[in-house]
Amino acid sequence: MKIIVIGATGTIGAAVASALAARKHEVVRASRKGEVKVDIDDPATVRALFAAVKNADAVVSCAGNAVFKPFAQLTDADYALCLRSKLMGQVGLARLATDHLNDGGSITLTTGVLAGKPMPGSAAISLVNAGLEGFVRAAALELPRRLRINAVSPPWVKETMVKFGMDPSPGLPAAAVAKAYVAAAEGAMQGEIIEAAKFG
Amino acid sequence: MKIIVIGATGTIGAAVASALAARKHEVVRASRKGEVKVDIDDPATVRALFAAVKNADAVVSCAGNAVFKPFAQLTDADYALCLRSKLMGQVGLARLATDHLNDGGSITLTTGVLAGKPMPGSAAISLVNAGLEGFVRAAALELPRRLRINAVSPPWVKETMVKFGMDPSPGLPAAAVAKAYVAAAEGAMQGEIIEAAKFG
Repeated sequence: MKIIVIGATGTIGAAVASALAARKHEVVRASRKGEVKVDIDDPATVRALFAAVKNADAVVSCAGNAVFKPFAQLTDADYALCLRSKLMGQVGLARLATDHLNDGGSITLTTGVLAGKPMPGSAAISLVNAGLEGFVRAAALELPRRLRINAVSPPWVKETMVKFGMDPSPGLPAAAVAKAYVAAAEGAMQGEIIEAAKFG
Repeated sequence: MKIIVIGATGTIGAAVASALAARKHEVVRASRKGEVKVDIDDPATVRALFAAVKNADAVVSCAGNAVFKPFAQLTDADYALCLRSKLMGQVGLARLATDHLNDGGSITLTTGVLAGKPMPGSAAISLVNAGLEGFVRAAALELPRRLRINAVSPPWVKETMVKFGMDPSPGLPAAAVAKAYVAAAEGAMQGEIIEAAKFG
């Protein structure tokens, strides 16, 4: 399959691109900084991506920003960034992918464990992740041309915890998280929230 | 208790205001059209409401618009309206209520059954409702001054089904749905999604 990975320079995205390439898929690595440029916060760049990369069978999004901050300190701008980036950036990607992927193609978005298991500081992220999950479950009922849509819910990732100076022992390595994205792209799931922790 | 009901002229809001008044609470009926004016889509009007109505113990939101439309027909403007109104209108209300309610006060928002049980046409509404639920679960972990936040999830309401020309037999009367809001305002729940169908 020809698979576009968005956010391919990030911790999870790089692992997903490697895992898909190892499975002999043709992988197009797209990101804000790489050779194939896209920024999901900006729908015009997503349209340009699909105009440049034709006949893809799948798109995987490992992109989108959100703000982790105490509830009392979250500003209007923080919420706006979360909505524009991780939430509507991915929703917009899914809507455009619906028009451009090959028949039977697959869309995989990224949610996260805070959707259903919040912690102090996660109000905006929990909103975004839960909203994405609601969207995926609903959009799956109406996709044309045997297209599929799912979301992977990564737990805390070991490499990210190291980066943040946290104890990485409860984390899942990015390479294990990547298996959930491979399963979503290659499998038959539709409208599912795939817990990456199960692939550890 | 002194309780502000927002959307008090709507089907559910009017039933909630009546039910709270029958329980001897002091009810402030606020809406876009009534005597006490507020439009949750416009944060300035919410700020004005809390400036005008001081020392409230609870606020109940039965307000917020969202668009039910086939996935392929949902426009950028439809999603923007849903985010601005039912989602961020209620999130913004909760954030301002946190600053203005009396200690131990209660915030009750409105989600809906489509959050977890989508149907064709509900992609935008399912996104909004699920996002609200994620927000409520997370914000509940951090509210100051013993404040509480919950969301009521109404099923299809009998009066609404009649209005839309649907068979109302599977619907729950608004008066039964209102019991869930009374329970949220008077009870001790925190961060819960309250299924109104259980109050039928």
